This record gives sequence, structure tokens and C-alpha cells, in this order.
Amino acid sequence: MSQLERIRRPADLRRLTSPELEVLAKEIREFLVSSVSATGGHMGPNLGVVELTIALHRVFDSPVDRIVFDTGHQAYVHKLLTGRQDFSGLRRRGGMSGYPSRAESDHDIVENSHASTALSWADGIAKANELRGLDDRCVVAVIGDGALTGGMAWEALNNIADGQDRSLIIVVNDNGRSYAPTIGGLAHHLDALRTTPSYEKVLGWGKRTLQRSGTPGRVAFDALHGMKKGLKDVIAPQGLFEGLGIKYVGPVDGHDISAMEFALTRARAYGGPVIVHAITEKGRGYTPAEEDVRDRFHAVGVIHPETGLPVAPSRFGWTSVFAEEIVEIARRRSDVVALTAAMLAPVGLAPFAEEFPDRVFDVGIAEQHAVTSAAGMAFAGLHPVVALYATFLNRGYDQVLMDVALHRAGVTFVLDRAGLTGDDGASHNGMWDMALLRTVPGLRLAAPRDAETLRAELREAVAVEDGPTVVRYPKGAVPEEMPALARQGSVDVLARHAGTPRVLVVGVGAMTRTAVEVGAALDAQGIGSTVVDPRWVLPVAADLVDLAARHDLVVTVEDGLVTAGVGSALRDAVAEAGSDVPVRSHGIPLRFLEHASRGELVEDFHLRGQDIAREAAASVASLPTLPSRVDATEV
Amino acid sequence: MSQLERIRRPADLRRLTSPELEVLAKEIREFLVSSVSATGGHMGPNLGVVELTIALHRVFDSPVDRIVFDTGHQAYVHKLLTGRQDFSGLRRRGGMSGYPSRAESDHDIVENSHASTALSWADGIAKANELRGLDDRCVVAVIGDGALTGGMAWEALNNIADGQDRSLIIVVNDNGRSYAPTIGGLAHHLDALRTTPSYEKVLGWGKRTLQRSGTPGRVAFDALHGMKKGLKDVIAPQGLFEGLGIKYVGPVDGHDISAMEFALTRARAYGGPVIVHAITEKGRGYTPAEEDVRDRFHAVGVIHPETGLPVAPSRFGWTSVFAEEIVEIARRRSDVVALTAAMLAPVGLAPFAEEFPDRVFDVGIAEQHAVTSAAGMAFAGLHPVVALYATFLNRGYDQVLMDVALHRAGVTFVLDRAGLTGDDGASHNGMWDMALLRTVPGLRLAAPRDAETLRAELREAVAVEDGPTVVRYPKGAVPEEMPALARQGSVDVLARHAGTPRVLVVGVGAMTRTAVEVGAALDAQGIGSTVVDPRWVLPVAADLVDLAARHDLVVTVEDGLVTAGVGSALRDAVAEAGSDVPVRSHGIPLRFLEHASRGELVEDFHLRGQDIAREAAASVASLPTLPSRVDATEV
Repeated sequence: MSQLERIRRPADLRRLTSPELEVLAKEIREFLVSSVSATGGHMGPNLGVVELTIALHRVFDSPVDRIVFDTGHQAYVHKLLTGRQDFSGLRRRGGMSGYPSRAESDHDIVENSHASTALSWADGIAKANELRGLDDRCVVAVIGDGALTGGMAWEALNNIADGQDRSLIIVVNDNGRSYAPTIGGLAHHLDALRTTPSYEKVLGWGKRTLQRSGTPGRVAFDALHGMKKGLKDVIAPQGLFEGLGIKYVGPVDGHDISAMEFALTRARAYGGPVIVHAITEKGRGYTPAEEDVRDRFHAVGVIHPETGLPVAPSRFGWTSVFAEEIVEIARRRSDVVALTAAMLAPVGLAPFAEEFPDRVFDVGIAEQHAVTSAAGMAFAGLHPVVALYATFLNRGYDQVLMDVALHRAGVTFVLDRAGLTGDDGASHNGMWDMALLRTVPGLRLAAPRDAETLRAELREAVAVEDGPTVVRYPKGAVPEEMPALARQGSVDVLARHAGTPRVLVVGVGAMTRTAVEVGAALDAQGIGSTVVDPRWVLPVAADLVDLAARHDLVVTVEDGLVTAGVGSALRDAVAEAGSDVPVRSHGIPLRFLEHASRGELVEDFHLRGQDIAREAAASVASLPTLPSRVDATEV
Repeated sequence: MSQLERIRRPADLRRLTSPELEVLAKEIREFLVSSVSATGGHMGPNLGVVELTIALHRVFDSPVDRIVFDTGHQAYVHKLLTGRQDFSGLRRRGGMSGYPSRAESDHDIVENSHASTALSWADGIAKANELRGLDDRCVVAVIGDGALTGGMAWEALNNIADGQDRSLIIVVNDNGRSYAPTIGGLAHHLDALRTTPSYEKVLGWGKRTLQRSGTPGRVAFDALHGMKKGLKDVIAPQGLFEGLGIKYVGPVDGHDISAMEFALTRARAYGGPVIVHAITEKGRGYTPAEEDVRDRFHAVGVIHPETGLPVAPSRFGWTSVFAEEIVEIARRRSDVVALTAAMLAPVGLAPFAEEFPDRVFDVGIAEQHAVTSAAGMAFAGLHPVVALYATFLNRGYDQVLMDVALHRAGVTFVLDRAGLTGDDGASHNGMWDMALLRTVPGLRLAAPRDAETLRAELREAVAVEDGPTVVRYPKGAVPEEMPALARQGSVDVLARHAGTPRVLVVGVGAMTRTAVEVGAALDAQGIGSTVVDPRWVLPVAADLVDLAARHDLVVTVEDGLVTAGVGSALRDAVAEAGSDVPVRSHGIPLRFLEHASRGELVEDFHLRGQDIAREAAASVASLPTLPSRVDATEV
């Protein structure tokens, strides 16, 4: 039985000797490489926190003490140490979540994977513990250096600093990168700290002290407990955090278990807010990751474990099309600049950055700043293109509304990974964007259906200078071209089926293929239909409303929230226009989605062409037999 | 002619001598007190920035140089110095906006009044200037110490620090309070800076240098330009900002024009990012404001200029009801705690704070942290009540979704100033909340119609422990009690008019009174109706859908965005239930609203009872004469 298999709960860790811990760390690393290579998942971040997580679970007594992981994709080691060692179904339905999950374990707290929240959670828990007289319970937040660039983290630090008597330990897992190298003044500050003389001093003292105490871990903690007075010796005065009133311990080698234990034990004993600055290496111990400068190993699909090369073809077809087209646009227009929030390569801006390094701005995990600084750039004569994952735009909603839209700034948002993303779990699905952006006055949103419409709609978006434009598309392969039969006003007509076209089938973006299938399935049952792609889905085009009013039934299908989504918007517009044609909308229901494949979710939600066609046929059958509103020659 | 009247544009300032500037400052203060007393508006913040604004416009050349005011309510002096001296119609339709306005002047840039955005705007403008080869143009952001507690400000600082060659001057207007005393580690840091020896040194050097140069202002700037090397002598090493890589100048007496000019001139000459820390006094020069510890003079209604006492009765009836009831609840339940974001007194939490000082948390201008730390508190056994202005919840949307709702945390949000607020202009209207919160799975939202329902719905909300609840109400006086005739399931029936009840009139919250008027007006035309208040409007209650399906027409009226609002949600729910009863929804249209009175806006949007009744009667007349769906005895 391996060391790893012997660990059923964190308490088991405390019995291990130093050499045994080293073996355990090695085993965990091997497990992660072979297991995540086979299933896909977050590789680099977890390889970087092996020793750090072991030390945390030796010093703190989870779940009585609370360990909050920021962006839970760094929690695989934590899962292994808290009784979850079956990674075979990672991120698949019925298998383990790729993030902490309260349903899986009492040791898990925060399930979402939006960055920079852990400090606020920890502050809330610490305040509650204090009020409830449970202040002997520790609260620990583990946060990456990248996540510290997010505004929420600052808001939390400012409040945590106010609680000088409240024990709260912030472990900064500093690997110098989030998705990409961390940027900004904070990153420079952390760089400077790494080279301070106190680094070696902490390491040296830590090791000596722990060696003297005989056994590491709880014994050492007990020995050191109450030595608060001596703490100042290892805490160097550090500008930024100390300026704010938070003690600083570090930097500590995050791959040295005993040094980490020493630092954490001291931090625990201090009794107020403390930052423990751990230096780690993302992808540590896995050669393909260590050697990769472009950080492809942050999250991987199924890869060959030895070479690190993907087994499946590229999953990011849409991203590649954007990557090419935005460079084309930028070559023609010197006023076009690109912004992103710590996801430069993943959203396809790497080629842009290579060709126009002065015209790309990665602002860190800071969507609010990305959006508002884009408004400033537009005011001063540029046309910014802000490229984000759809789910992360939620963070900048107020700024889209109040900075961009209110000021009619010509800013284009490109939302990648829109719609169902599936295996990343509830908080990565880009399903809120359309319902949300519908409430922004003057905003126009396009949902391309294929590579050609993505190129065209992106060009149209960047040409708009009097308000926000959005182009959104999913994760996954780009479907084959779906050429339009005709353009009816602003609407692309993709199919006109024989017979009186009683049903208007509206496809939104990537669901246009499904709409085409619905039309074909209805045709097979002798029900005539018109299948359209409105191209620009927000605001609802008058041409689409006209078309709708000339059919007996409208069916919409979208890869976004059905609640308040595009179908709902069309229903409102149709009612506003005085038509009573019924609109049946199909999309993602209003609930948080467990991790599963995109296909499984599409099936669950009855979003396959055959499901929708069946329901549409039933609706047609139940319609009052009024004369058709449609003159077939018109459409 | 007064000094003030002679100032038509900023250039006119540069001709004035030191004594003339003192006279000007005095005149501006007198003007503000008499003028804002008469119209209402932001008094305290503007009295605090008189000298600071004069100095800014002497040192910088607006609008070539860009001066960005954070939360534009501190821009009255700027308006006076840029050609706008008619304050008689302040915040009224046709009169001057209470915030910067591009329509009013080329000197204005950011129109919204949500805090902490100025640094991001400035960073965007500075980056654009650099790319366009216009780097001789200066960019200045003026931001309060309170606004620095907002996460966006941190995100911006982190990015600004990255542009070491990009000139960007941040003037921190530090009065130790935003709406209320500024909180957190940052506030302590600023306190510490105020007492540094460099304070007097800067003042001394500034004055001597400017006196030597004969005339202040541009001349002094020219004399000092290029003296970058000497700058270090007056810049003390200051932990927080310098740690981040931003030079720090100060603290400077913000009421000393020549000291401010000196500091700004040096900052301008530096050529990189600089913070100028100005110490000011909110309400300076106006005795009632200076003596008021509770900061009532931040924004005032019409007041008597000498006593500072309000001329009109309290405008905040709803707030007072909440203030009482939450204390009652807290007396019974020790797990109930309150949070707010720098608006403790304005949202009615002062009595709570007095009785339960340990159970109230003002987190600063930090809605994101308020929301997520509340999720943490709920996890750890408390029931947090987060009280905010409705418009500011937009800042925490992602946190409501991903931290509170995803984790089914029992957190209650109380949204004050919901709906039309009118005179504060576009960004203060609390009109987005319902459309936005509709997209949050598991969230329940109540809109009380009067004091009694506010009390009851707040109690119901706080009893919910498995997900977010929201109670929202407007600014203004509470209407008289509107007792229900009956409760039909979860729905309050307020009126049943004689005859077959063909129309269901649904009132949302404060618009229930209007719904009652609609019912009465229809009755006068012989059209029967049922008038209801659903109490909990999100999610749409099945009982309401049932009622709707048993009428021939549904009319909804809400004090929120009609786009994707409650009426739209009911229309969707009715369609989903298979009913084809038409739903006519009335609310605020999807556009940004110019400042005007609430009454004017209600009239513009045809939201008066008579308008809605007229339209409903016309709809009834055009309905197909099918047999009524309603059995009058049922409802």
C-alpha cells in the first residue's frame, strides 16, 4: 500500500515522518500526472501546491478549521488528502467535480471557480466565528498571486486589516502567473519580496526549529505556540501588506514542507491577520509543464502523459477564427486595441500580441478595470476589443452599463466559452450573458453561427462607434459553414421548407444548426417552416418581429438562459407589436448545472433538434385552425 | 462684479493673484451654501474641494489635459470654473445635472456616479494618449479616500503602476469619509500618512518655492519642470503606494491653494504615475456641516441655509420603517447581522448599529466584498442582511449569483432607493434590480407596497435560510396602508370591481397604488377587474399564473425596467403554462434617464393610473369576444 493510499483523512498525515512526507508528495505528483492526463483537468496549478496542501492539513484541523481555496481548480491535492482518491470520473457526470464540492466533503467550502473570492469568504467566516464565540477555530484562505490582482481581493484585504484581533491566515500561492504571468504593480512587489534576505532566514530558522522539536507538525506547533513575541524577528517589514496593517511572513519555499509548516504554525499563533507568502512553481515535477512557457498546462484536455501533447484535436475552433480575424482587422485599423483579463492566450489574443505588442493590454484578473479602462480608451479615440470568457463578464456588468453604455462608448466585447461549457461545472457555464446584456440600453449583441458569420459579425461590431457591441460564441469545434439562402432585412434565412410555412424556427448562434434540424424534422412530418438566424439577437430586430407575426408559431433555440433570454425578448417584442403569435423558447433552464458533458446537458434540457421538433409539432396540432397568416411568397 | 463672475473659463484663473484666489474661494463657498440650500444637492463634498479644484484648473489645461472626477457629485466647483454658474435648476429637468455631463461641457468626462471608476477611466485615457502620440497631454483623476476602498480602484492602481513612463496623476481627496467615515486598513494607512513629518516639509517647500517664482501657477510649473531629480526629497517612502510602484506626494493641505499647486506641478513634472494626497475637510466653511458628526450634509434636500435644517419633511419614509423593523428582528434573533457598503445611516442602519454595534459591518465602498463575506457568514451560522441602494447591487451581481445563490446561502438583501429616483440622474435610478435578479437561480424577491407589507416581507425574507432573498422599496414617502381584501394563495387581492372581472391588474411594490387606480378607472368605464399585489414577485408565483389564466387581459405595472422585468417574467410564465392570455407590461423603458423629478418621469413613461387604464380599456375593446375565462365567484 502506498503512502497516498494510507491517507484517508487529514489526521493520517500527522503521523508521517519527514521522509514519508517526501514519498507522499512524490506519489501525489505521479498520481496527478497519470490521472489528469487520462481525464483532462487542471494540471499545472495542482502540481504546484502538493507540499503546500500537505503542510496546511498538518497544521490546521479541517473541517473545524476552515481552509478556503480560491478558484478551486487548485484543490485536487486537498481532495486526495480528504478521502477522495478516485479521480477516474473527474469532471464527468457521476464522477468527482473539478472544484471543491460540499456534496462531496465537509472539508469543502467554496464551489465556484471565479477568482479572488476566498478572502471575502474567509473574512465572513472569521467574523461569524468571533460573534458565535468560536474564535479558537482558524480560518485560512489560499489564494494565487494572480487572484490578488482582482478588486474583490483588495476590498477583502482592507476589511481583514480592520480585524486586528481576528485570526485569519492568507496563504499567497505565488507562482508568478495565473493563467498567464501575473501583471501589474503587485506582481513587481511580489518579485521584490522574493529576493529579500528574510527568505533564507525564514527557511533556515524554520528547518532548525522543526528539527530540534523532533517530530514535525502538531508537536512543533505546540512547541511554538505562544511564542508570538518572537514572531517579529521573522516578519520583515514589507511595504504593501504591512502598510495596510496585515502582518507578512515570507517568502517561504512552498515546496519545502517543513518550512511551510513552520510559517503556517507561526501565522496561526499570531492571532491576527497574517499573509504567508509561499513561492511555488506551477507544473512542478512534470517536465512538459515546467518547460512550457505558454502555460498550456494550466488546464488540459486528455493528453499523452509523457509528451504532454493533446490526444484529441483542438477544442477551441471558434477561438482560432477570432484570433485570425482580429489580427486582420488590426492590420487595417490602427485604432483597434485588445484587452483581456489574465486570459490572453486562451481567448486567442496571442497572435495579436505578437504582431501588435503595444496594442494589447492584459489587465490581470480584473474584469471591472478591463471594461472601464476600455471606456476611457474609446473616449480618447481608440476602439477597444475586450476579450473574455462569457462567465467572467458578469463581474463587469455594472461597468458595461455605467461606463460603456451610458457614455455610448464604442467598445466591442468578445465572449468566448459562451453557453454550456459542461465539465468545468456550475460557475464556468457562459449562460448568463444574453439575459444580462439585454438590460443594457443601446447594446447590440451578435451570436455567429459559423466561422464566416463570426468573421463578418466581428467586423460589423468593430465598425460601431456609438455604443457597446458584443460577439459571443461557444467553446468547442466550429461547425461547417451554413450559408444563408437569402437575407430578409437583417435576418439570414437558412431554410424554407415546402408547404405553407407555419412555423418560424429561430436559431441563436451555435444553436442555428439545431434550428436547421428542427426545420428538417418538421418538414418530414409535413409541417412547413422557415428557419432563420437573426445574426444580431439584441436588441430584437424589427425584421424578426415582422417575420414572426407572419407565422402561426415561433420556436426559438439558444445556448443561454431561457429565462429572460433571446426567446423571451422576442416574445416581449411580438407582444409589444400587438401580435398574438405564440413564441415557444428553448434554452438553458434557470438552475446551476452540475458538471457533465455538453451533450448530456443538451439532452437533459431537451435541446436536441428532435426534442424541439416534437414539441413544435404538438404545438402546431393544438393551434386554432385559423387561416394561415403567411403568404408563402412573401418570405 | 465678483471674482467668481469674472471666471468664464479655467484660463481666467491663471491671471489671479494669491489674495484674489482667496476671495474667489470664499465667494464659491458662499455661492454653494446659498444655492444648494435652495435646490438640494451635494453640499459637503463640494465645500471640501474648493481650493483643490482651483489649483487643478490652474496647473492643468483642461480640456486638453483631462480631469476625471470620481463620483461626480464633487464636481460643482469644477462646473463653476468651466462656465456653468447658473445653479438655479440644479438636478431639475432642463437645469444643470448634479454630475459631470458631456452635453454641458467639453470639460466633463465621466457622467456616472458609481464610485471608484475614475482611475480606470484615467488609465484608459492615458494609454490611448500614449498610443496616439499625445503623451504631452496630462491625465488627472480626482478620487476620494472612500472610493479607494472599492475593488476597481485597486485593479486600476495595479495597472497604472505598470505604466512607469506614462504620466498619470491621482489626486486623493482625503476627508476621512465617503458617505461615512472611511473604514479598513487603507483608512488607517492614510491616517498614519497624515502625521508624517513630510507633511510640513511639503507645505514649507511648496510655499517658499512658489513665492520665489513670483507668480504662482503655470510660471511656477515651468520653473519647476525638469527638476525631476529633486522630487525624491519631498516624496517620503510610503509603504502602500510605493510598495505598488506609484510615487507618493503628500500629504498636502487641500485647502491651501499654493501648496496644492506646488504638489500638482511637481506631480505633473514627474512623468510617471504619482499620487498626490490632499487632506480636506468635508463641509469646510459651513458651520452646520462642520459640526455635524453624522454627515447629513453629504447630500441634502432643500434646507434652510443658516440652520441646515430640512425645509421639507423626511424624504425617507421607507428607510425609517426598515430601520425600526430590522432592530425588532435583531432583538429576537441573535444570528441576524447587518452589512452595508459605506451607507450605514442612509440605508437606515444607524439604530441597529447603536443597539448592536458588534453585529453591523460597514465594509467601505465594496459591494462585492459585502455580498461574498455575507455568504461566508451564512456558511458559518449567521443570517446576514445586506442593505444597499438598489443601483449599487449591480456591482455585486456576480457575487450574488456565484457566492450566495450557488451555495444556497441564507442572505437577505434590502434594496433601498429602488426604482425611479429621478434627480440624481441616470446612474442612481434603481431600475435594474428586478430584471437582473430574475436571472439568479433560487432567488426570491419581494416588493412591499406599504409599511405593513415591508415589515411582513422583511420578516419572511429573514426566515429563509436556503437561498438569497431580496426586499426592495423606493426612495420617498411611504404611502398609506393598503390592506388586502383577501389572500389568494400567495397573492394579496386588493380590489374586486363589479361585473365580470376581465382584467387582472398586477401592481409591483410601490406601483400597487397605481394598480388600484387602474382598477378604479376601469370600473368607471364598466370594465370589471381584479387588482392584486403578488408580494413576492420573483420567481413568478404559480398562484399568480393561475389567476392570470382566468382573466382575458393582464396588466402589470412596476417601478423597474419593463425590459425583462416582472411583467415580462409573468408573460413568460403564462406562455410556459400554455395560456394565451395577453400580458401588457408597464414599467421603465430601456434607456438612460436624464435627471428630472420622479413625477415627470412617471408622466413621460405613461405610468400614471389614468394612462394605463386608457390603454387597458382599448385592449379590452379589441379582444376577441370569446366567452370570459373567469368564473366571477372564483376570485
